[in-house]
Parts: sequence; structure tokens; C-alpha cells
Amino acid sequence: MSEMMKAVVKTHAGPGFFELCEVPIPQIRATDILIRTRATSICGTDVHIYNWNPWAANRIKPPVIIGHEFCGDVVEIGSQVNDVQVGDFISAESHIVDHTCDLCRTGMAHICRNTQIIGVDRDGSFAEFVAIPAANAWQNPPNMPPEIAALEENFGNAVHTALETPVVARKILVTGCGPVGVMTIAVVKAAGARSIYASDISDYRLELARKMGADLTLNPKQSNLVETVLEATNGEGVDVLLEMSGAQSAIRDGLQLLKAGGHAVLLGLPPKPFELDLGNLVIMKGITVHGIAGRKLWETWYEIRGLLRSGAVNLEPVITHRFRLYDFEQAFQTMMSGESGKVVLFP
Amino acid sequence: MSEMMKAVVKTHAGPGFFELCEVPIPQIRATDILIRTRATSICGTDVHIYNWNPWAANRIKPPVIIGHEFCGDVVEIGSQVNDVQVGDFISAESHIVDHTCDLCRTGMAHICRNTQIIGVDRDGSFAEFVAIPAANAWQNPPNMPPEIAALEENFGNAVHTALETPVVARKILVTGCGPVGVMTIAVVKAAGARSIYASDISDYRLELARKMGADLTLNPKQSNLVETVLEATNGEGVDVLLEMSGAQSAIRDGLQLLKAGGHAVLLGLPPKPFELDLGNLVIMKGITVHGIAGRKLWETWYEIRGLLRSGAVNLEPVITHRFRLYDFEQAFQTMMSGESGKVVLFP
Amino acid sequence: MSEMMKAVVKTHAGPGFFELCEVPIPQIRATDILIRTRATSICGTDVHIYNWNPWAANRIKPPVIIGHEFCGDVVEIGSQVNDVQVGDFISAESHIVDHTCDLCRTGMAHICRNTQIIGVDRDGSFAEFVAIPAANAWQNPPNMPPEIAALEENFGNAVHTALETPVVARKILVTGCGPVGVMTIAVVKAAGARSIYASDISDYRLELARKMGADLTLNPKQSNLVETVLEATNGEGVDVLLEMSGAQSAIRDGLQLLKAGGHAVLLGLPPKPFELDLGNLVIMKGITVHGIAGRKLWETWYEIRGLLRSGAVNLEPVITHRFRLYDFEQAFQTMMSGESGKVVLFP
Amino acid sequence: MSEMMKAVVKTHAGPGFFELCEVPIPQIRATDILIRTRATSICGTDVHIYNWNPWAANRIKPPVIIGHEFCGDVVEIGSQVNDVQVGDFISAESHIVDHTCDLCRTGMAHICRNTQIIGVDRDGSFAEFVAIPAANAWQNPPNMPPEIAALEENFGNAVHTALETPVVARKILVTGCGPVGVMTIAVVKAAGARSIYASDISDYRLELARKMGADLTLNPKQSNLVETVLEATNGEGVDVLLEMSGAQSAIRDGLQLLKAGGHAVLLGLPPKPFELDLGNLVIMKGITVHGIAGRKLWETWYEIRGLLRSGAVNLEPVITHRFRLYDFEQAFQTMMSGESGKVVLFP
Repeated sequence: MSEMMKAVVKTHAGPGFFELCEVPIPQIRATDILIRTRATSICGTDVHIYNWNPWAANRIKPPVIIGHEFCGDVVEIGSQVNDVQVGDFISAESHIVDHTCDLCRTGMAHICRNTQIIGVDRDGSFAEFVAIPAANAWQNPPNMPPEIAALEENFGNAVHTALETPVVARKILVTGCGPVGVMTIAVVKAAGARSIYASDISDYRLELARKMGADLTLNPKQSNLVETVLEATNGEGVDVLLEMSGAQSAIRDGLQLLKAGGHAVLLGLPPKPFELDLGNLVIMKGITVHGIAGRKLWETWYEIRGLLRSGAVNLEPVITHRFRLYDFEQAFQTMMSGESGKVVLFP
Repeated sequence: MSEMMKAVVKTHAGPGFFELCEVPIPQIRATDILIRTRATSICGTDVHIYNWNPWAANRIKPPVIIGHEFCGDVVEIGSQVNDVQVGDFISAESHIVDHTCDLCRTGMAHICRNTQIIGVDRDGSFAEFVAIPAANAWQNPPNMPPEIAALEENFGNAVHTALETPVVARKILVTGCGPVGVMTIAVVKAAGARSIYASDISDYRLELARKMGADLTLNPKQSNLVETVLEATNGEGVDVLLEMSGAQSAIRDGLQLLKAGGHAVLLGLPPKPFELDLGNLVIMKGITVHGIAGRKLWETWYEIRGLLRSGAVNLEPVITHRFRLYDFEQAFQTMMSGESGKVVLFP
Repeated sequence: MSEMMKAVVKTHAGPGFFELCEVPIPQIRATDILIRTRATSICGTDVHIYNWNPWAANRIKPPVIIGHEFCGDVVEIGSQVNDVQVGDFISAESHIVDHTCDLCRTGMAHICRNTQIIGVDRDGSFAEFVAIPAANAWQNPPNMPPEIAALEENFGNAVHTALETPVVARKILVTGCGPVGVMTIAVVKAAGARSIYASDISDYRLELARKMGADLTLNPKQSNLVETVLEATNGEGVDVLLEMSGAQSAIRDGLQLLKAGGHAVLLGLPPKPFELDLGNLVIMKGITVHGIAGRKLWETWYEIRGLLRSGAVNLEPVITHRFRLYDFEQAFQTMMSGESGKVVLFP
Repeated sequence: MSEMMKAVVKTHAGPGFFELCEVPIPQIRATDILIRTRATSICGTDVHIYNWNPWAANRIKPPVIIGHEFCGDVVEIGSQVNDVQVGDFISAESHIVDHTCDLCRTGMAHICRNTQIIGVDRDGSFAEFVAIPAANAWQNPPNMPPEIAALEENFGNAVHTALETPVVARKILVTGCGPVGVMTIAVVKAAGARSIYASDISDYRLELARKMGADLTLNPKQSNLVETVLEATNGEGVDVLLEMSGAQSAIRDGLQLLKAGGHAVLLGLPPKPFELDLGNLVIMKGITVHGIAGRKLWETWYEIRGLLRSGAVNLEPVITHRFRLYDFEQAFQTMMSGESGKVVLFP
């Protein structure tokens, strides 16, 4: 296994600098496994690394192979690995946690004090092979389509957000219909929501939102979000806000539309601090705001499994584009156009 | 309004003694409303009153008009009634609570210390007219089918049971497929369960269970419940038990099939005390057992509304028989045959 | 009862305009009760009305008798009142709710859509007599000291905040040590907190915080809150933030000090919108933020009763000043000096 | 480390057969640590092994060194151990879990599918040295008294039970005042309970219950539990039942005394199945029953730490007897007399 493989590497600091390189196949440690990548999908995070936004500039240390949403076949296991075997078809939790901090020890490993992320802090999956700790492997049935298996990690963000607070029989507003947003809509629909209102500034994505289960969609560039949803709810507003955009106006409008006593679940990251009327929008209304990061280990993954195996959620429509790994440039351009759902690469 | 009406009256203590009588239309008090009954359905409780089981013998004071699942049009309102109007199409919460005890004041009115039940402790709905406190009215849309509206109260037991603990993406066992059982299956299905296993000793009811969403049904007279469900779950058992039968064997088998840390939600009333291995079935497994009574006021009713209006639950298949009020004898015989879902009467 | 009484009236819009007037004793309606006030305490809200801040200017319609924290003896009951009797010694919930909106019907009456507040939207308790709905009365034991009974409503804010999320065995930060803040400290102490850190810009109040149970107090004008608390917690931060000040810096520092996955409970009202880093302080840390308004009806009042009757909380030290009603000017000056705990008036 | 040590060994199946033997000091594996025992206490489980009750006969495979409540100094660590060091003063979680089953992966490691118990399924702590996985070690401050540190594991059962459901400001009934029962009383007291009623058939233990915080104690052999507690609660009953005895009558009386909607938390193991009126005692009252096993890993241990370090709980009074290890026979006789709290052995 001292041979070479193809991989997309962030070679230098700065915008761009993604290159398809020939690099050594990774060596594994005693508790690691080596995976031959079957499919890997592009995350918004990968786009931030490409564009070298402030977060990326601060965190990424090139050269690094990027990519953290993937699936593949186990081709080698470390000497201390017991519960994964060569030949297993696995997806991966991308957060490598320390298992020993106070948060890991009390059911909050998803916000471990020492999280390392695959494809961010160490080599990732836009490559023919990727090495990960065996503890990060998630078993898939052999007949699961690779593009669905690659999506599970990102779908997990949607599941974590959608199921943070009860949605059954309730009125839900989803602000932001990127890939995670529309997958969230699918979960909320599967979980028996009474009605799903969805907003985005891309009509392409609103179309996708309807396909995934939204009852009413609207583009805030074209119509007034607050007025429209109030009208649709007899002036009452919604029971739950699922915020997937990180946009200031979406957060403000969403909180305004939320009924007193309601739950706001926030996944979208605002690019910077902004002015918020906590007193009127949160405190006096008795609202609960839930910040969401990652996937609960491993509660969310069991929920992923349940939703996919029962057929309650079908992720096929989310995958709008497929590319070979060496067409990664075109794949990223598609992803950045706003005219896509999920973009999957095949090494 | 001093005229007479037709009503089914329990005239004397003892089995039977149901009679279609001519009785005065009820007078209402300042906080009451009078309803012209459009539809009313038969509950297991009504059968107990008919058969005069120990509970009925202890509680019912004949003569009383029975029936507590119903809908109708408001034809008169008391002088202090503000939020119900003549012409409203309403269903009714059958539990009349005192609004002032410690339980009512802390979100537990469904188990009020001084509950009175319509059709049990006072005259009920197997009649052309019925009088109830305005506070017990629930508004329906004018175009809701009367037989569905009549069913809401009983559907509420199913909703209360099914949504007591999360079911989304989880494996569920429903023991007992009478009308409430199969409606519970429909709620669990609508709420995104991963798989639904259902048991009953009537093949007719198991057929109905499959129609309402059960993935696997079985008759414990014909096959072994524990073995079958263990096999279907790779030996793991289920995440949630919803017990709707009150049968000892169902409770024991259900608890045995429940995974450690799981939730057992019990609605079915065992006819008498019985031997239970609390140590092995509950304590050492770290299980939580939830006793369920009535409907949460009014959280459950809002959930009823949400599930019906979105179409997530369709109750039509549950209603298997319809009769005119004066055919009540035939209706009760049908209900007692075990070869029926819900039986509805039209006055 | 057509006689006259003494009352403190906000006579005109604008700062000041509090006047001790001779006004008619209130008439009661069928569902009301009339109370002879024994004691009534000054709330921050009363100070806002005195100073005529933007909120007051927008909401108060003079002339109105102010005051909403009080206790007294029932001297008359309306014709439909059953559960309160002449001679009862009662405190009052100051929020008059409609009992019929969706929030009231689902356990959230404390944020009723149509709340009216005593002493704000209708005549209040800085008077010899006050009329309230019987449904707002809370029974006290005859031997409870009137100044404690008057405090129960405000103590309820502290109880609601402190018990919103588990505090037992946990590290707690309380920002803001006004009267509600120090009562919150007392509740958290009674509930078994591991350690209580408290901050305020008044040394007088920090002294009171220590008396009520704070383990470590600090004045952010004199030392760095973040550094001090991090040092005291081995760099880990706290499990729970109870924000009672409404100050921007307290909210920001408090959220920064909160452990990932922790709970922030916000009662203090920021005077206006301000810039907040939701992404880093809430979302990526997986924090839950709880907005708190009023007292849960009536869960909080039962908790008030439990904490006072067991002696787990002693409110005596909070009451630092007592005045006769006609010395109300001096009482307000004391309250506004920052050198007081709770100020009580005796009509 | 091939030397010998003293240990209490269950040498053969059957009642008795405890012997102080000279055995080899345990060898450790790569992920284990070796501890020189400072103190170790006797659990009810050890008494069952001594008496060879049906559970013990079924589970124990002699010869085995018994004992699982202990503390000591780390004297050797395995080659892969990183977070424990020689010289650390540790207590131990006695449940060795597999870390990989579905329960371990979803926050329920305390009911792991493959739990092995120290001193039950493998050699334990009634010995000069004991070997455990490093993952089971819990760090103590160097100055913690050894007899308190030895007690933490058993105290954890009390903490897990007492904090399963809110007790602050509530009325609590504790049935069973053995060592775990009285430690539970101490936790409930520290957590702000309104009142604590306690029952046991030993007056010695009731005396201990009062020392640890019970407000009212009673011996059901001498007075009627149901009548006494109803009288003390104005006929209302209690909010929470903490059942620590496993006695049928205590479970039945406790459930009867529990208010509708209340919580019953069961730790005591009934020796065999028994007749229970689930319908009237649980279902119709809308009660929630929580089975409790072990300690939550590691939430309970953080709560143990919080309660002990703040001084909110003082365990000193629970420790009534101290013996040298070679006086183990006398220690067991004391423990079995019913006239003791906790009995601690010092190797």
C-alpha cells in the first residue's frame, strides 16, 4: 500500500488553489481504517475553503486534501480495530472527537472540546482513498446507492436540526433552501408537520423545496415573508422556526413569525455579528432558541438510518449533479451557481 | 325548547337495559351550550355500560343517556357564553373538569381531581340533542365530515398515546388493534416511525391495522409475538411500546420486547391486578412507563387538528359501520362482534 | 363600599406625575374580588412608569393607579366567585389572561395573546384597596408576613428563571444582582447548585448577593468578568447562565463563559437591539437560550409555595426598606439609588 | 509485580464460602490500570453473593474476588493509557461497558448490552490491589477522605434516582432507608425538596434518615404509611416517589400515595414478580414510572462531584462502621444486622 492515488488538494493559502495531485495513499494507525472512496459530495464548507473566506483563512493549513462527506469500502484495518472489517461499506462521521473531555463524557461529543474535522484539519475524501479512525465509521447496507451513502453526513445536519424539537402536527417555517435546508424540509414532512413554509432567494432552490415537501414557498426578493406567512397562518405565526441560511433578515423575520413560546432552531451561520432585538423577539415572547452544531453521536445517525430505511425520506431529488473527480472544477462552479442541489463526485 | 327528543337511555342497573326513549330536550345553564347531534360513535366504555361490568356497576347511576363521542351544531348558548356561537359546528371534549384543582392549574386538567364524564356521570350524546359546558367545545371547519368530527375525541386518545414519546425514525410495537389501536398506528406512521409491528387476536382488526400503516401484523393465537418481533428486529427489540389492549400477556411480552432504556406507553386498562416482573422488565432495563388517560387539554386537540388538516392521518378506513340511532341495538352487536372498526350512529 | 380611598396615581403622561390622590374604592364585577392591601412592593416596572421610559410612554394611559406586587385581605367577592372567600389572605398574579387563546389552552398562559397587567393596563395596588379577578388570587397561610406575601409575584420571576433548566450540582453564573437577581441566587442555592458566580456594577447589591448565597461576586467595573470566572472554573466556564440585567456586556460575556451545550436563561430586558455574535456564541457552541416572561400559571406559584414553606429560601434579607404609602416619593428615590434591595410600601 | 496480595475470595458456590486468601497481584492489559485499594465498602450485592441468593447462584462463577465500591492509588498503567497517571487517586465506575453497542452509542451506556461488573463477573476490590480498565477511572482530589471516595459509586445510585425527575419545591416520599435510601434523602434535601417523607421497617435506619434530612419518618410495622402521608399532605399525596426497598407493599403504597401525573422512580429490586394494579395505580392516574439501573456515564459522576464539592451533601453520617479487611466476617455480620449504615473495609 505504498502506492500513489489521485486527490484534490488545497495547495496554498488564498482563493482557488485546488489541484488534482498524485499523492501517496495514506498510512493508517492501529485504531484507523483505510477506505476506497466510492462517492463524495461537496459541502458549503468546501466552497468556503475554495473561496478562502475568513473562517478558512484562519483554520486551514495547506496543503490538505479536502472533502468530508463520503462513503466507500474498507480495504485495510489497523491492528486494534475490532468492529469494522475489510469489505464493509461505510459512511463516516466527519468530526473526530477525543472521547475523554467533559462534553464527550456527558452526551455532547458533537461539540467536543477538541474536535478535528476530516478534510479540514486533516486529509479528507476528495481522493481515491481516505484514512479515518475506526470509531468514525458507520455501517451501510451493501445495496445502498453510493451517492445516498455519501450524503448521510450532511443529511445528519438536517436531521439534527429538524428533530431538535417536536414538529409533528405543527406549523413550520424553514428559512434557507440550500441542500441542508431542503433535506430538513423532507425530514419535517416525514415527521408529520401540519404545514411547511419555506423561503430562499433562489427560485431554483424553492422549486427543490416544493419537491421535498414544502407546502408554500416564497422568495423574499419578490414578496414579503412576514406578511405572507402571517396571512397563511391566520395571523398566528408558526410553532417552529428552522433557520438554515445564516441571513440576518431571515433570522429576524423568522423570530418575528414565531409564536410566543415557540422554538427557533438555528443551523445557518451568520457571517458576522449583527443587531438583534433580543428583548422583543426572544425574551418577552418566551421563546427557546437552539444552536445546532454537527450531528449527535450517535443518536442522529440512528435517526438517519431509520428515516432512510423506512423510505420516509427520499434523498434522490436533492442530488442534482454528478461529476468524475477530475472534473472537480466544473463541480465547484455548479455548486457556486446557486442553481444546484447536492453535487456528488466519483473518484 | 321544552319539546321532546329521542335518546338511548340506560334505564336500569344490570346488563342490557338500553332503551330508545322520548325524553325532554336538555335545559342549559348560563355557561352551557345546546348541540343538535349530527353523529356519535360507540366507545368501548359504552360497551362496558351495556354489559354492566364491575366498573360500570360501580359508577353509573341510571337512568342516564349514554354516549360521549360526538359532533353537532350549536343551537343555543347560555347567557355567559362568549366564545361559542349558535351555528358553530363543534366536537366535544368529554371530560368536564373543575379548572381550579392543583392538577388543572398545572397543566394536568386531563387528570383533574373532579372529572365528570359526559354520557357516564351526566346525560350524553346518543340523543338528538346534548348540553355541555361551552368550555368543552372544539371548533370544526364547516366542511368536516360529521363521522370524522364525531371521532375526534377518541382519536385524541390515540394521539395522546402515540405522541407521548418520540416515535420518528424508531421501531414501534402496538399491542391491541381495536379502533384506538389502529388510529394510534396511523399517528405513528404519520409521525415518521421506522417500522410498526402490531398484534391483536382478531384477524379482522389486523387487516385494518395494515390498512392504517402497520408494516408487520401478527395474531398471538397463531404465532409467537416475542420470537417474531425479535427476528424482525435482529434480536434488538423495539424502541417504543404502545399498549392498547389491557391484556396481561401483551403487557408482559411488550415489555420484554422493549429495548433497555425504551419507553412503554400504556393506555389499555387491564381488567384487574396481575403479576408483573417489575425488576427484570422495568427496573434493571432502565425503562420508562407512561400511564395515559384522556387527552391533554388542549395540546392533544391542537395535534388532532394538525394531523387531520394536513391529511397526514386519514380516519376514513377506521369507520366500518354506520347506523341510524334507532338501530342502536344492531350497532352494539356489531361493535361487540370484534369484526368492526368504529361504529357511528346518526340521530 | 361607595367610599373613598388613598392611592398613588400616575396622573399625566411624562416623567414624574405620581400623586397621592383620594379616589373611589373600586367596584367589582361578578367574577372579581376586592382586596384591602396589606403590603405592596416597588418593581423596576414602576420605576419605568415613574421615569416615563419609551415602553411606558407607549403603553400607559393615565390616569392609572400603579403597583402590581401586593398582598391583602379579601373584603368582598363577586356573585359568581366560588373559590375565594371574604377573609382570605391572598397574593395576586399580576397578569390577567384571557383563558381562551391558543397559548392559554396549551400551558402557556404566562404569554397569553391578550395579557392585561394590574397597575399597568388597569388600576393597581399602590392603594388601600384593589380589585382583581378571583382567578388571579393565590391563597396564603394567615401567618405569612405581609411583606413576604407582597413579594411572591416578583419572587416568581426569580423562580421561573432559576428553575427553567436543571441547576443542581452545576456551576451557575448570575449576571445582575437587583432584587430579582438576588432572589434568583437564593433559589439556585436552595436547589443545590455546585457554585454560584454573580456580577453587578453596584457593590451594595453584590453584598446582598453574597448574603443570598453567591460564592463569588464581582463588579465588572473593577475586574474582568470573563477572566475571573474562567479562572474560578479551571478554564471550563459555567453550565448555566441566568441573565437578570439586560446589559449588552453581561449577555455577551455570559454567553462566552457558558460551556458548549449549556443553557442561557434570559430575563433581563435589553433597552434596545444590539449587536450579537450568534454564530460563535450560540450556534457553533450548541447552546440553548431560554427567553423568560412572567410566571408559569400556576406551576411557578406552587414552586414559590414549596420554597418558602420548607424554609429553603428566606426572602427577609431582600427587603431592605419599608415605607408608609404616603412616603412613596422617598420610597421611589431609595429604589432608584441602586442602594437598596426590595422596597415595600404599607397603605 | 509478580508478588502476592491478600483478598476476600468467594471460593465455592453456596452460602458463605468467603475466605481471606493469598493470591497473585493482578496483571494488567494495555488499556488497564492497577490500583492499590485504600478503602472499599460493602454493597447489598455483596451480601447477596455471601448468602448465595438465586441471582448470585445464577451469575457468580467462583472463585472470584468480590467487592466493587472502592477507591485507591494508581500504581501501574497499561501501555495505551493516556489520561490516567501513576499516583492518581481514583474511584471507579463498577460497570465495564463495551462502548460500541447501540445503547452505549446513544447515551445509555449504563444499560450497555454487554455490561460486566467488577467484583461480580471479574475480580473485585476486597483486596490489596485491583485491576480495571482506565476508562472506568474517576479522578478524585488528593485530599478527599478515602471512605467517602469509596462510597461514590454507591452514592451514584442515589444521585441517579433522586435527580431523574425534578424534586425542587416538591413533596417526596422515599420508601426504604438502607444506605442508598438515606443517601437519596440527602440528595433530595440538597436539591430543595419541600418535604421528605421516609419509611423503613428498621428504627435504626429511620434515625439515620432523619439525620440525612427526612422531615417525617415512619415504620410501616408501627403505623399506616398511606394514612400518615395523606394526613401530612392534606389528602393530596406526594409529587414524587423514590422507591429504594423493592418491597411489594412499599411499591403499592407508594404508587397509591403518588398524585395523579406524578413520577415514581424505582431502584429497589423486588425479589420476584408480584401482583400490581397497573390500571388504577399507573394508567388512570397518568403516572410516569422510571426504572433506574446503575449510574449515567458520566452525567451522574459529574453530579456526584458537584454535590460533594459544594458541601450540599455530607456523606459522613452514612458511614457507621469501619473494619480492617481481615475482619471482613465481622463487617458482613454488621451489615446483615440491619443496625448499620454503610460498612467500610480498609485493606
